[in-house]
Amino acid sequence: MASQLKAAVAGATGFSGCELTRLLLRHPGVDTPVLFRREAEGSGEKKPQDLAAMIPALSGHGPLPVHPFSWDALEKNGTELLFLATPHETSRSLVPEALTRGLRIIDLSGAWRLRRPEHREVYDFHDADPARAAALSEKAVYGLPELHSDCIRKAKLVANPGCYATSVILALAPLLRAELIDRERGIISDSKSGVSGAGKEATSKTHFVSVADNLSVYAPFRHRHVGEIVEQLGLQTEDLTFTPHLLPIPRGILSTVYVHLTHPSKTADIESCFTAFYKGRPWVRMFSAPTLPEIQFSLYTNYCDIGFCLDESTQRLIVVSCLDNLLKGAAGQAVQNMNLMYGWPEEEGLQ
Amino acid sequence: MASQLKAAVAGATGFSGCELTRLLLRHPGVDTPVLFRREAEGSGEKKPQDLAAMIPALSGHGPLPVHPFSWDALEKNGTELLFLATPHETSRSLVPEALTRGLRIIDLSGAWRLRRPEHREVYDFHDADPARAAALSEKAVYGLPELHSDCIRKAKLVANPGCYATSVILALAPLLRAELIDRERGIISDSKSGVSGAGKEATSKTHFVSVADNLSVYAPFRHRHVGEIVEQLGLQTEDLTFTPHLLPIPRGILSTVYVHLTHPSKTADIESCFTAFYKGRPWVRMFSAPTLPEIQFSLYTNYCDIGFCLDESTQRLIVVSCLDNLLKGAAGQAVQNMNLMYGWPEEEGLQ
Amino acid sequence: MASQLKAAVAGATGFSGCELTRLLLRHPGVDTPVLFRREAEGSGEKKPQDLAAMIPALSGHGPLPVHPFSWDALEKNGTELLFLATPHETSRSLVPEALTRGLRIIDLSGAWRLRRPEHREVYDFHDADPARAAALSEKAVYGLPELHSDCIRKAKLVANPGCYATSVILALAPLLRAELIDRERGIISDSKSGVSGAGKEATSKTHFVSVADNLSVYAPFRHRHVGEIVEQLGLQTEDLTFTPHLLPIPRGILSTVYVHLTHPSKTADIESCFTAFYKGRPWVRMFSAPTLPEIQFSLYTNYCDIGFCLDESTQRLIVVSCLDNLLKGAAGQAVQNMNLMYGWPEEEGLQ
Amino acid sequence: MASQLKAAVAGATGFSGCELTRLLLRHPGVDTPVLFRREAEGSGEKKPQDLAAMIPALSGHGPLPVHPFSWDALEKNGTELLFLATPHETSRSLVPEALTRGLRIIDLSGAWRLRRPEHREVYDFHDADPARAAALSEKAVYGLPELHSDCIRKAKLVANPGCYATSVILALAPLLRAELIDRERGIISDSKSGVSGAGKEATSKTHFVSVADNLSVYAPFRHRHVGEIVEQLGLQTEDLTFTPHLLPIPRGILSTVYVHLTHPSKTADIESCFTAFYKGRPWVRMFSAPTLPEIQFSLYTNYCDIGFCLDESTQRLIVVSCLDNLLKGAAGQAVQNMNLMYGWPEEEGLQ
Repeated sequence: MASQLKAAVAGATGFSGCELTRLLLRHPGVDTPVLFRREAEGSGEKKPQDLAAMIPALSGHGPLPVHPFSWDALEKNGTELLFLATPHETSRSLVPEALTRGLRIIDLSGAWRLRRPEHREVYDFHDADPARAAALSEKAVYGLPELHSDCIRKAKLVANPGCYATSVILALAPLLRAELIDRERGIISDSKSGVSGAGKEATSKTHFVSVADNLSVYAPFRHRHVGEIVEQLGLQTEDLTFTPHLLPIPRGILSTVYVHLTHPSKTADIESCFTAFYKGRPWVRMFSAPTLPEIQFSLYTNYCDIGFCLDESTQRLIVVSCLDNLLKGAAGQAVQNMNLMYGWPEEEGLQ
Repeated sequence: MASQLKAAVAGATGFSGCELTRLLLRHPGVDTPVLFRREAEGSGEKKPQDLAAMIPALSGHGPLPVHPFSWDALEKNGTELLFLATPHETSRSLVPEALTRGLRIIDLSGAWRLRRPEHREVYDFHDADPARAAALSEKAVYGLPELHSDCIRKAKLVANPGCYATSVILALAPLLRAELIDRERGIISDSKSGVSGAGKEATSKTHFVSVADNLSVYAPFRHRHVGEIVEQLGLQTEDLTFTPHLLPIPRGILSTVYVHLTHPSKTADIESCFTAFYKGRPWVRMFSAPTLPEIQFSLYTNYCDIGFCLDESTQRLIVVSCLDNLLKGAAGQAVQNMNLMYGWPEEEGLQ
Repeated sequence: MASQLKAAVAGATGFSGCELTRLLLRHPGVDTPVLFRREAEGSGEKKPQDLAAMIPALSGHGPLPVHPFSWDALEKNGTELLFLATPHETSRSLVPEALTRGLRIIDLSGAWRLRRPEHREVYDFHDADPARAAALSEKAVYGLPELHSDCIRKAKLVANPGCYATSVILALAPLLRAELIDRERGIISDSKSGVSGAGKEATSKTHFVSVADNLSVYAPFRHRHVGEIVEQLGLQTEDLTFTPHLLPIPRGILSTVYVHLTHPSKTADIESCFTAFYKGRPWVRMFSAPTLPEIQFSLYTNYCDIGFCLDESTQRLIVVSCLDNLLKGAAGQAVQNMNLMYGWPEEEGLQ
Repeated sequence: MASQLKAAVAGATGFSGCELTRLLLRHPGVDTPVLFRREAEGSGEKKPQDLAAMIPALSGHGPLPVHPFSWDALEKNGTELLFLATPHETSRSLVPEALTRGLRIIDLSGAWRLRRPEHREVYDFHDADPARAAALSEKAVYGLPELHSDCIRKAKLVANPGCYATSVILALAPLLRAELIDRERGIISDSKSGVSGAGKEATSKTHFVSVADNLSVYAPFRHRHVGEIVEQLGLQTEDLTFTPHLLPIPRGILSTVYVHLTHPSKTADIESCFTAFYKGRPWVRMFSAPTLPEIQFSLYTNYCDIGFCLDESTQRLIVVSCLDNLLKGAAGQAVQNMNLMYGWPEEEGLQ
């Protein structure tokens, strides 16, 4: 017990924070985490509330007090690792102080994912110390274990990737590394997500009647995840057409990615490219043609499933990638990053 | 054209108001209705907005200006019939004035459905003139055409029934009229509704993720429709156990109603009881045993579908009734009432 | 009555046939249609069955006998127009005889949609008289009123378009006519359909548990509708990448279509191109940027809704088109074709 | 490893068998199970197939060969415990031989749940040795750990309860034990289940389009689980009105149970009755009034969640119980039974 990691979750009542709490509660290496709510909830109220009273699906674990955020509470508990499942503006304001206090941080928001200043503009940050924030933005490690496991192991600040971004980057990274993609022809990711990806706020757009029996496109050409994807893949913004769609399901993402190959390839070549790249990576499952992943297959798991279909005569390639946006797309990936940071197997607590 | 009815809809942007507008636009006897929005929407804003811009499903009908509510606009247009698809408190405040101005009214809210003062308490009305409001409550006609068509024809103020209430009353009225039900044993209606019945407001309870893949009970023993049901059926409150459930579908109601019969009956007797009662009523469809109605059958129609299953050996009877809560449960029934009030066939504009 | 059109529906119990029957029953110009079932249903059984007993949602229209198919029944009734909502092989075998008997035909299957013999190979037809069948394939009129209304008016044999094909062709035809699309860069249609598009047969793929909470890709590069689309748009097969997806909803299609423009254009230019092309066409609704159509908007209507988003700086254009696959994608379009063939307004019976 | 339990699953490809396989694969006390398919699948085919190829969601566990059933394969593997997730007729024919061979059995079908011969009639068994089968029926232990943990520990043949039955029995057992229920007034369980409860067979009733946007009643008064419920609760068949409904969700059950109390009670009394009964039972979660369980709360867990609402003035009591029909209603409960049979904690492998 004494040897267990002391962790805290800020934003424990949101979709990702709640899923993360559930995972940490059953992780063998982690002590019961300290939980903080969003500031808006019970504002002014100083007493802890019980998470299971708010989220009855979590009952049965004993008391799970959720406190208003406080550095004192963190310190008193001896917290070593702080998960932030907070709005990006909150993450921007908490992280500098947290680093000063010697905490390691895994941030699930979009606050620290972007290196290029022009990409960060979409977030319209209002930093107290812009110079330090910019410096931190450049030092933060993008927490995609399949690309950056070495850096993650040593990182102080891990920027956990966006859910869409994870699905698109993992579909393309092996092909781009192998220089198989003709960038001139453009890359299109037609991506579809369940509603939990849009967060817990009740709006006319997340009303059941607006979503059920429906499918809609939103934010074509200008979704915030475009910046992450192109930075991580070494692309220019105009190389990628990214179109998110809202699916009438609670969770899950499927990205249908369209590329042209640079030179004639066979189905077996593409499969080799992927399997070589993801060799030893426990949370990517490759599907052999003609089987393609479906959203159901990876739901409630930490897998990113990848399959593809190549038209050998025209060198058009379709890559399909699926994941659970709350697990591999958020909380599961955060735990995978924690496992790397503390020297545990990547699968620990995720099966 | 000159001979067409001049109608207006207050609350045209809610689920029921919008469905009602759609029906009125294609009703052969009604002029293009004057539309009013809820006060909260674009409050302060005096300019009309276009309904199709707010509800794109309604585009293609030409301009559909939605105004802030005003008596002047009603008068200028020569409005004869005013539909209220407003919150009940708004209906309580508008109706006295509207009657004074000589308008006929069909109110889709719960404002005027209840005769007994003790039942009205659940609404906590704040009437400017309580005595007049109480008198109007007693004079309002409960707009269930299958029970009260004669009164509806002459009514000035029609209180359009609640969606659940319609499904339960139509399931029970023939049996109670024939004195087939043993009230001592109690009557249970286990009712299930799609989400549009809960209205358009975005809350944590109507968030897609809260409703999808779920079923929940709400307001057991104390739903507001209990008063309507027992008044219309001549029951005491404690005779009826009414339990609403929220279904993961946008629209539709199914009520499973449990009663014990007073004396031995055969399946054929029960069927005769229903078919005699609903003879000539175009919007009730009886299903012969063993076929039972399902929600799908009546969706996007104005039908209330009724079927039943009798255990002849124990005289336990289950009645199942289904309807579309936005049509027979709200806007369709309002049009059916209008048809009676203006001497048109009950089917007019509803097929 | 005597002046009403005598029509018949073969395959009245499938999804499209049933929807068509519903539309014909309320069409003012058409007599109650003669209904035939699929041969497999009640095979051997010669007695008519009642459609409402099979499809309770259709009850309330009086008796709707469904007979085994017979030329005698057609003749006795004086049928002038035969709708085929049958498997394509059945359509291939019935049409030559029907034309010989002087009937006009609207065929909802894929049997007669394809001109180029190489495209027809995907259907693997086994025609009794291959030469005559090939000749008929070339004479059949592709029943897309927005492209071919003049030919449809005089047609003996109308091949009603596929649901996906309608959504893709209507999204692209105006742009291709105006030579705005750079075909060298390729055209991608990422299309998503509700389950009724897959037909009524119960298989593991249409099982509720396989579809719910899911999204899947099927038949990439090789769906049967590719032939129709490229023929109608004057493209080569390799110009178009068409990827169908199965949505967890009962009905509705959304196609997200990606093209590059040939030369710099403005949003207003694209809108003009579409509105000019669809001027006077009652069943296409254009949405002005930035509003995009959603599946819900056109459900239970005969509209094809079209919107778009142009990235002016890179000339990438995304066109979004939506329709109800059982209406504009099947039965509604068939009625629209009938309206043209018999000189009625295109809207007749479809509102 | 050598000390791990050798188990086998017959019927590994059905919904319950597949869920069970998933649970056993991660259970620390069980060796990789031997898997058998249903006879109908790949009939005649003797070669093993890979389960992950049939059920891609299970990929990532390495090879999972599924064999045609054979006693030899069982013996060769040293199987000690045989799970049957087979049709009930198959279970009736396999169990006598399996017991003769010294195996312990947990049967997930309805084959061995019923003691009273008149209840077994609903299954229409065709036993090779009717006398032995009848004797086994009486000796089989009903595998509901919350009622029969002592017998389960020593059992040779455990009849795993039905999903509906589990939800209804757990809702009523504490109240009946305490003699709080007035049986004369009758007990009603209005129960609603997701589609996986109906099994994997593709029929018109499980077609996505039949279920989505729908709710339907089936088998009123005559569902096969009635026998189990009344036997376990010591009721007569006519005491219980059980009405199952098919929900448009993949999994989950909610039972709304209506009873009258024998004497005046308070909400706190009812809560005490339940908490005393379920003290120390890890897989029942009680909810304090006014919170009621919802289907979502127990999905993907082995919990049965129970809550209630009492009308103190009339002594009408509504009990609501929820569970995941594939876990506490089938495979999870089977693992819970195994845990008891082999002396492990009831939670083992289920968290």
